[in-house]
Amino acid sequence: MTDTDYMRRTLRLAKRAAGRTSPNPMVGAVIVKTGRIIAEDFHRAPGTPHAEALVLAEAGPRARGAVLYVNLEPCCHTNKRTPPCTKAIIASGVKKVVIATEDLNPQVSGRGVTELRNAGIEVVTGVLEADARRLNEAYFKFITRGIPFVTLKVAMTLDGKIAMPSGESKWITGERARMLVHRMRSSVDAVVTAIGTVLADDPELTARVRGGRNPMRVVIDPRLEIPSEARILNAASETVIVTGVRRAKRLDELSGKGVKLLLYDKTLNLQWLMERLGRMDVTSVMIEGGSSLAYHALEDGVVDKVAFFIAPKIIGGRDSYPAVGGRACASLAEAYRLRDIRVRRAGGDILVEGYVDR
Amino acid sequence: MTDTDYMRRTLRLAKRAAGRTSPNPMVGAVIVKTGRIIAEDFHRAPGTPHAEALVLAEAGPRARGAVLYVNLEPCCHTNKRTPPCTKAIIASGVKKVVIATEDLNPQVSGRGVTELRNAGIEVVTGVLEADARRLNEAYFKFITRGIPFVTLKVAMTLDGKIAMPSGESKWITGERARMLVHRMRSSVDAVVTAIGTVLADDPELTARVRGGRNPMRVVIDPRLEIPSEARILNAASETVIVTGVRRAKRLDELSGKGVKLLLYDKTLNLQWLMERLGRMDVTSVMIEGGSSLAYHALEDGVVDKVAFFIAPKIIGGRDSYPAVGGRACASLAEAYRLRDIRVRRAGGDILVEGYVDR
Repeated sequence: MTDTDYMRRTLRLAKRAAGRTSPNPMVGAVIVKTGRIIAEDFHRAPGTPHAEALVLAEAGPRARGAVLYVNLEPCCHTNKRTPPCTKAIIASGVKKVVIATEDLNPQVSGRGVTELRNAGIEVVTGVLEADARRLNEAYFKFITRGIPFVTLKVAMTLDGKIAMPSGESKWITGERARMLVHRMRSSVDAVVTAIGTVLADDPELTARVRGGRNPMRVVIDPRLEIPSEARILNAASETVIVTGVRRAKRLDELSGKGVKLLLYDKTLNLQWLMERLGRMDVTSVMIEGGSSLAYHALEDGVVDKVAFFIAPKIIGGRDSYPAVGGRACASLAEAYRLRDIRVRRAGGDILVEGYVDR
Repeated sequence: MTDTDYMRRTLRLAKRAAGRTSPNPMVGAVIVKTGRIIAEDFHRAPGTPHAEALVLAEAGPRARGAVLYVNLEPCCHTNKRTPPCTKAIIASGVKKVVIATEDLNPQVSGRGVTELRNAGIEVVTGVLEADARRLNEAYFKFITRGIPFVTLKVAMTLDGKIAMPSGESKWITGERARMLVHRMRSSVDAVVTAIGTVLADDPELTARVRGGRNPMRVVIDPRLEIPSEARILNAASETVIVTGVRRAKRLDELSGKGVKLLLYDKTLNLQWLMERLGRMDVTSVMIEGGSSLAYHALEDGVVDKVAFFIAPKIIGGRDSYPAVGGRACASLAEAYRLRDIRVRRAGGDILVEGYVDR
């Protein structure tokens, strides 16, 4: 077993809490002594012990002279609910710490590593760094910029259509793809949709998957058209309505139902919305709307990642709804470019993921 | 080495003549004696010896008691330029013949196998049958129905767009994908495009790839708008213009340039066009046009296979050109369904291939 092998195991452990650690990162830790794993665990939820604390407690005095693997630089600051991990690591007597990636949190950002080294511990960094960055991509964006990491999800036919001219869209993709979407919802803090989708499909936007955690649901509803009986207003999770309307009675009615309201002036810029959501500790967002919302999200520059589910079907038609509506970009050279493309099968469908290159 | 191993080798040999055997199938043959390959070859072009004849000649008297592997049932009929293979096989003294798939040619269709068995030769069929069917999918369609096997090729962005509102489309996909398209052109008998593409891009539609063979070029030009200087009229290969116009002077001018003309009455049905091309011994066609041609090809039911190249870009817009134009199908249940989907990377792009389910 090499450092890379142990780190792979550490990352797998970290991932087991996917969707449950926000606004904290996912962190796993493994302690290895004379070629044997003597402790392994992961951070479960905010307010609970960090992964490092868990494995050090598990190992107890056996940690002395051992190697600690952790996918994120251990914390060294105290302005949170749990004590700094660097102190506990130093106290434990481990001789070496292997870290996948630095913590970009301005309160850590290399200081954790320095503290360990100053205490005479050997520190190795950068093992499976790319994977570790990807695992906590939402955390890294949020901790450095204060705005959520945004994924634009689309479910379309091979010819790029998300709905028939009538609005019919159930179902373009198959069961497996839809299950994956539920899982994706479960791993983000909020899902953002628009009133058009609410009126057309009346979705719940919950994570109906085993162990799923429902995200906050955000509806962009400029003219406040949402029907009182819309399913997205149900109690399954918090709902936020983003509107430009200030009709007191309707707003009061929605407030009374426990709906949170975000009011904007004149026109909505999605960058503004993401900043507002960031202030509400929303670290990750999945956008699930129609042609128009996809267009505005790209146009306003808020999309970090795309996840396009492609069904092996063709609808055709200039009259059906395209994946991305609005107006085309000015020229081919100005098209949004995607990098780090990943392609995989999702049942009978195909999932293409990529990052928007800015 | 099992029968499957030898058959895999046989199929690889057959494929080496891709694009050069039409209207004949691609056929490879291998002779194995006491665990050693003593002869292997493939059919190179119409009018030249069949693969079986080549390997039997190569093996000579050593063929006695050997096993012959061939991916297609040996021919038994005489109405062609070369003698029937069954006779030669029987005369050679091989004791066993392993065949991947029956020849659906109504003049063979099991009779080759029967003839061999009647001569006391052991015959095994169905080894790697699916691969063998796929390899000669164009031949099988043509030999049974007299119409070419049609592939619809599209080069689009992830959001299903093939051109900007201005018509700009150079280049959506990368070099590797474009090179593959040249290779695909080289392996079909004809490429079909429409006047819109000729006017917008002035393409040559030749196979500019090492060892490439230029396909016949077919332009659908209802109102005979093709400019005399269009590159597609150059001497690189034969050009056919399909039109509903009967302006004698313009037709004469094009004829004088060596262009073949196909005149239709009233409206063009692509099924009619494919039948006409079939009568010209065109066994395979690739459709490379714009939104409208893709729509008509699907609508007229001529598409057997699709090959969608997907570039990791997003153009957006209801005003840009979709992969498939025209009118959407009536409902989601009536969408064209694709089966046997294959996904692979083509440089930075993705290639999705599938068969239209009827």
